[in-house]
Amino acid sequence: MTTNNPENNLFAKGQKGSADYFTGTVWVAPLLAKDSINNFSIGNVEFEPGARANWHTHPRGQVLIVTDGQGFYQEKGKPAQPIKKGDVINIPPHVEHWHGAAANNRLVHIAITNFENNEFVTWLTAVTDEEYKIVNQTK
Amino acid sequence: MTTNNPENNLFAKGQKGSADYFTGTVWVAPLLAKDSINNFSIGNVEFEPGARANWHTHPRGQVLIVTDGQGFYQEKGKPAQPIKKGDVINIPPHVEHWHGAAANNRLVHIAITNFENNEFVTWLTAVTDEEYKIVNQTK
Repeated sequence: MTTNNPENNLFAKGQKGSADYFTGTVWVAPLLAKDSINNFSIGNVEFEPGARANWHTHPRGQVLIVTDGQGFYQEKGKPAQPIKKGDVINIPPHVEHWHGAAANNRLVHIAITNFENNEFVTWLTAVTDEEYKIVNQTK
Repeated sequence: MTTNNPENNLFAKGQKGSADYFTGTVWVAPLLAKDSINNFSIGNVEFEPGARANWHTHPRGQVLIVTDGQGFYQEKGKPAQPIKKGDVINIPPHVEHWHGAAANNRLVHIAITNFENNEFVTWLTAVTDEEYKIVNQTK
Protein backbone atom coordinates (compact mmCIF):
# COMPACT_ATOMS: atom_id res chain seq x y z
CA MET A 1 0.00 0.00 0.00
CA THR A 2 1.26 3.48 -0.87
CA THR A 3 0.29 6.71 0.74
CA ASN A 4 0.79 10.39 0.08
CA ASN A 5 0.44 11.06 3.75
CA PRO A 6 3.39 9.37 5.50
CA GLU A 7 3.09 11.56 8.62
CA ASN A 8 -0.62 10.79 8.94
CA ASN A 9 -1.41 14.47 8.56
CA LEU A 10 -5.07 15.47 8.41
CA PHE A 11 -4.60 17.67 5.33
CA ALA A 12 -2.26 18.22 2.42
CA LYS A 13 0.78 20.31 3.34
CA GLY A 14 -0.03 23.13 0.91
CA GLN A 15 2.43 25.86 -0.08
CA LYS A 16 5.47 27.21 1.73
CA GLY A 17 4.65 30.37 3.69
CA SER A 18 6.43 33.52 2.50
CA ALA A 19 9.63 34.62 4.27
CA ASP A 20 8.00 38.07 4.36
CA TYR A 21 5.60 36.78 7.05
CA PHE A 22 7.27 33.73 8.60
CA THR A 23 10.65 32.71 10.04
CA GLY A 24 11.69 29.14 9.25
CA THR A 25 9.72 26.57 7.25
CA VAL A 26 5.93 26.90 7.39
CA TRP A 27 3.31 25.16 5.22
CA VAL A 28 -0.05 26.81 4.54
CA ALA A 29 -3.02 24.95 3.01
CA PRO A 30 -6.35 26.69 2.33
CA LEU A 31 -9.33 24.58 3.44
CA LEU A 32 -12.28 26.93 2.87
CA ALA A 33 -12.53 30.39 1.27
CA LYS A 34 -14.66 33.19 2.71
CA ASP A 35 -18.00 33.26 0.89
CA SER A 36 -21.36 35.04 1.05
CA ILE A 37 -22.40 32.95 4.09
CA ASN A 38 -19.19 32.31 6.05
CA ASN A 39 -17.47 35.57 7.04
CA PHE A 40 -14.21 33.69 7.61
CA SER A 41 -11.65 31.59 5.81
CA ILE A 42 -10.23 28.33 7.14
CA GLY A 43 -6.69 27.12 6.58
CA ASN A 44 -4.24 24.57 7.92
CA VAL A 45 -0.79 25.73 9.01
CA GLU A 46 2.20 23.55 9.87
CA PHE A 47 5.22 25.13 11.52
CA GLU A 48 8.35 22.97 11.44
CA PRO A 49 10.43 23.03 14.66
CA GLY A 50 11.78 26.55 15.27
CA ALA A 51 9.39 28.17 12.76
CA ARG A 52 6.99 30.97 13.69
CA ALA A 53 4.78 33.69 12.25
CA ASN A 54 5.81 37.35 12.38
CA TRP A 55 4.08 39.54 14.89
CA HIS A 56 0.66 40.42 13.40
CA THR A 57 -2.91 41.54 14.09
CA HIS A 58 -6.35 40.49 12.80
CA PRO A 59 -9.07 43.15 12.38
CA ARG A 60 -11.82 40.67 13.45
CA GLY A 61 -9.79 38.08 15.35
CA GLN A 62 -8.90 34.48 14.63
CA VAL A 63 -9.50 31.07 16.25
CA LEU A 64 -6.74 28.44 16.28
CA ILE A 65 -7.40 24.72 16.81
CA VAL A 66 -4.12 22.88 17.45
CA THR A 67 -4.20 19.42 15.83
CA ASP A 68 -0.64 18.26 16.44
CA GLY A 69 2.63 19.12 18.14
CA GLN A 70 3.58 21.90 20.54
CA GLY A 71 4.39 25.57 20.30
CA PHE A 72 3.61 29.04 21.61
CA TYR A 73 1.06 31.83 21.41
CA GLN A 74 2.24 35.23 22.64
CA GLU A 75 0.49 38.59 22.88
CA LYS A 76 2.75 41.67 22.88
CA GLY A 77 3.87 42.58 26.40
CA LYS A 78 2.68 39.29 27.94
CA PRO A 79 4.46 35.99 28.64
CA ALA A 80 4.19 33.38 25.86
CA GLN A 81 1.63 30.60 26.44
CA PRO A 82 2.68 27.04 25.60
CA ILE A 83 0.06 25.47 23.28
CA LYS A 84 -0.37 21.85 22.23
CA LYS A 85 -2.58 19.36 20.37
CA GLY A 86 -6.24 19.81 21.33
CA ASP A 87 -5.94 23.46 22.45
CA VAL A 88 -8.29 26.14 21.10
CA ILE A 89 -7.06 29.76 21.12
CA ASN A 90 -9.50 32.66 20.66
CA ILE A 91 -7.41 35.61 19.43
CA PRO A 92 -9.09 39.02 19.89
CA PRO A 93 -9.20 41.70 17.19
CA HIS A 94 -6.33 44.21 16.93
CA VAL A 95 -4.12 42.43 19.49
CA GLU A 96 -0.51 42.17 18.34
CA HIS A 97 0.64 38.54 18.70
CA TRP A 98 2.53 35.63 17.14
CA HIS A 99 2.21 31.84 17.13
CA GLY A 100 4.56 29.13 16.06
CA ALA A 101 6.34 25.88 16.84
CA ALA A 102 8.57 25.11 19.79
CA ALA A 103 12.29 24.90 19.02
CA ASN A 104 12.20 21.10 19.28
CA ASN A 105 8.66 20.23 18.08
CA ARG A 106 6.41 20.99 15.13
CA LEU A 107 3.06 22.79 15.58
CA VAL A 108 0.04 22.11 13.35
CA HIS A 109 -3.14 24.15 13.69
CA ILE A 110 -6.36 24.92 11.87
CA ALA A 111 -6.93 28.71 11.64
CA ILE A 112 -10.42 30.22 11.33
CA THR A 113 -9.87 33.86 10.33
CA ASN A 114 -12.70 36.39 10.46
CA PHE A 115 -12.87 39.12 7.83
CA GLU A 116 -13.61 42.82 8.10
CA ASN A 117 -14.68 43.59 4.55
CA ASN A 118 -11.73 42.13 2.62
CA GLU A 119 -9.15 42.55 5.41
CA PHE A 120 -8.08 39.71 7.69
CA VAL A 121 -4.45 40.28 8.75
CA THR A 122 -1.85 43.03 9.17
CA TRP A 123 1.71 41.70 9.18
CA LEU A 124 4.33 43.35 11.40
CA THR A 125 7.97 42.63 12.27
CA ALA A 126 9.59 39.20 12.62
CA VAL A 127 9.92 37.48 16.01
CA THR A 128 13.66 37.85 16.48
CA ASP A 129 15.95 34.98 17.43
CA GLU A 130 16.47 36.71 20.79
CA GLU A 131 12.71 36.95 21.49
CA TYR A 132 12.20 33.32 20.41
CA LYS A 133 15.12 32.03 22.50
CA ILE A 134 13.71 33.60 25.67
CA VAL A 135 10.30 32.00 25.08
CA ASN A 136 11.81 28.54 24.61
CA GLN A 137 13.98 28.90 27.72
CA THR A 138 11.13 29.84 30.03
CA LYS A 139 8.47 27.35 28.95
CA MET B 1 2.66 6.41 31.45
CA THR B 2 -1.06 6.88 31.79
CA THR B 3 -3.33 8.71 29.44
CA ASN B 4 -6.90 9.93 29.43
CA ASN B 5 -6.89 9.70 25.68
CA PRO B 6 -6.43 6.01 24.74
CA GLU B 7 -7.83 6.47 21.22
CA ASN B 8 -5.49 9.41 20.57
CA ASN B 9 -8.49 11.68 20.07
CA LEU B 10 -7.83 15.37 19.55
CA PHE B 11 -10.42 16.46 22.12
CA ALA B 12 -12.30 15.17 25.16
CA LYS B 13 -15.34 13.10 24.22
CA GLY B 14 -17.84 15.46 25.87
CA GLN B 15 -21.47 14.56 26.58
CA LYS B 16 -23.74 11.98 24.97
CA GLY B 17 -25.94 13.56 22.31
CA SER B 18 -29.68 13.47 23.03
CA ALA B 19 -31.79 10.67 21.52
CA ASP B 20 -34.16 13.48 20.50
CA TYR B 21 -31.64 14.56 17.85
CA PHE B 22 -29.41 11.54 17.21
CA THR B 23 -29.75 7.81 16.47
CA GLY B 24 -27.10 5.62 18.11
CA THR B 25 -24.23 6.78 20.32
CA VAL B 26 -22.89 10.26 19.63
CA TRP B 27 -20.50 12.38 21.73
CA VAL B 28 -20.63 16.18 21.59
CA ALA B 29 -17.90 18.41 23.07
CA PRO B 30 -18.13 22.22 22.93
CA LEU B 31 -14.82 23.82 21.90
CA LEU B 32 -15.74 27.51 21.56
CA ALA B 33 -18.93 29.43 22.35
CA LYS B 34 -20.34 32.14 20.10
CA ASP B 35 -19.22 35.54 21.40
CA SER B 36 -19.33 39.21 20.42
CA ILE B 37 -16.62 38.68 17.78
CA ASN B 38 -17.17 35.16 16.44
CA ASN B 39 -20.69 34.69 15.04
CA PHE B 40 -20.33 30.92 15.31
CA SER B 41 -19.78 28.17 17.84
CA ILE B 42 -17.29 25.34 17.42
CA GLY B 43 -17.81 21.81 18.67
CA ASN B 44 -16.40 18.33 18.23
CA VAL B 45 -18.77 15.48 17.39
CA GLU B 46 -17.97 11.76 17.43
CA PHE B 47 -20.46 9.34 15.89
CA GLU B 48 -19.88 5.71 16.84
CA PRO B 49 -20.37 3.21 13.97
CA GLY B 50 -24.02 3.28 12.83
CA ALA B 51 -24.79 6.56 14.62
CA ARG B 52 -26.15 9.62 12.82
CA ALA B 53 -27.84 12.98 13.34
CA ASN B 54 -31.53 13.49 12.60
CA TRP B 55 -32.42 15.38 9.46
CA HIS B 56 -31.94 19.09 10.26
CA THR B 57 -31.31 22.58 8.88
CA HIS B 58 -29.07 25.51 9.89
CA PRO B 59 -30.35 29.08 9.39
CA ARG B 60 -26.82 30.35 8.50
CA GLY B 61 -25.12 27.10 7.47
CA GLN B 62 -22.36 25.03 9.04
CA VAL B 63 -18.85 23.89 8.11
CA LEU B 64 -17.67 20.37 9.00
CA ILE B 65 -13.99 19.37 9.17
CA VAL B 66 -13.66 15.57 9.36
CA THR B 67 -10.76 14.62 11.64
CA ASP B 68 -11.16 10.84 11.76
CA GLY B 69 -13.09 7.90 10.36
CA GLN B 70 -15.67 7.65 7.59
CA GLY B 71 -19.33 8.42 7.18
CA PHE B 72 -21.92 10.24 5.09
CA TYR B 73 -23.35 13.67 4.35
CA GLN B 74 -26.73 13.70 2.61
CA GLU B 75 -28.97 16.54 1.44
CA LYS B 76 -32.68 15.75 1.10
CA GLY B 77 -33.51 14.36 -2.34
CA LYS B 78 -29.84 13.81 -3.30
CA PRO B 79 -27.56 10.77 -3.06
CA ALA B 80 -25.49 10.55 0.13
CA GLN B 81 -21.84 11.62 -0.19
CA PRO B 82 -19.21 9.44 1.51
CA ILE B 83 -17.00 11.65 3.72
CA LYS B 84 -13.71 10.82 5.44
CA LYS B 85 -10.79 12.19 7.47
CA GLY B 86 -9.49 15.44 5.95
CA ASP B 87 -12.73 16.39 4.15
CA VAL B 88 -14.29 19.84 4.59
CA ILE B 89 -18.07 20.17 3.99
CA ASN B 90 -19.67 23.60 3.50
CA ILE B 91 -23.38 23.15 4.36
CA PRO B 92 -25.65 25.91 2.97
CA PRO B 93 -28.36 27.64 5.01
CA HIS B 94 -31.86 26.11 5.11
CA VAL B 95 -30.87 22.89 3.30
CA GLU B 96 -32.33 19.80 4.97
CA HIS B 97 -29.54 17.27 5.53
CA TRP B 98 -27.95 14.76 7.90
CA HIS B 99 -24.42 13.54 8.66
CA GLY B 100 -23.15 10.57 10.57
CA ALA B 101 -20.89 7.54 10.73
CA ALA B 102 -20.77 4.62 8.32
CA ALA B 103 -22.28 1.37 9.61
CA ASN B 104 -18.79 -0.10 10.13
CA ASN B 105 -16.68 2.97 11.01
CA ARG B 106 -16.79 5.90 13.39
CA LEU B 107 -16.90 9.51 12.16
CA VAL B 108 -15.30 12.40 14.05
CA HIS B 109 -15.72 15.99 12.88
CA ILE B 110 -15.27 19.55 14.04
CA ALA B 111 -18.46 21.60 13.40
CA ILE B 112 -18.35 25.39 12.93
CA THR B 113 -21.96 26.54 13.21
CA ASN B 114 -23.01 30.05 12.18
CA PHE B 115 -25.72 31.84 14.15
CA GLU B 116 -28.69 33.90 12.99
CA ASN B 117 -29.38 35.92 16.12
CA ASN B 118 -29.61 33.10 18.68
CA GLU B 119 -30.71 30.38 16.25
CA PHE B 120 -28.33 27.82 14.78
CA VAL B 121 -30.25 24.57 14.12
CA THR B 122 -33.75 23.24 13.48
CA TRP B 123 -34.09 19.54 14.22
CA LEU B 124 -36.40 17.38 12.09
CA THR B 125 -37.18 13.65 11.89
CA ALA B 126 -34.75 10.78 12.47
CA VAL B 127 -32.92 9.11 9.60
CA THR B 128 -34.77 5.80 9.56
CA ASP B 129 -33.07 2.43 9.54
CA GLU B 130 -34.38 1.95 5.99
CA GLU B 131 -32.90 5.26 4.76
CA TYR B 132 -29.59 4.49 6.49
CA LYS B 133 -29.40 0.94 5.14
CA ILE B 134 -29.77 2.16 1.55
CA VAL B 135 -26.97 4.70 2.01
CA ASN B 136 -24.59 2.08 3.38
CA GLN B 137 -25.42 -0.39 0.58
CA THR B 138 -24.70 2.05 -2.23
CA LYS B 139 -21.49 3.69 -1.04
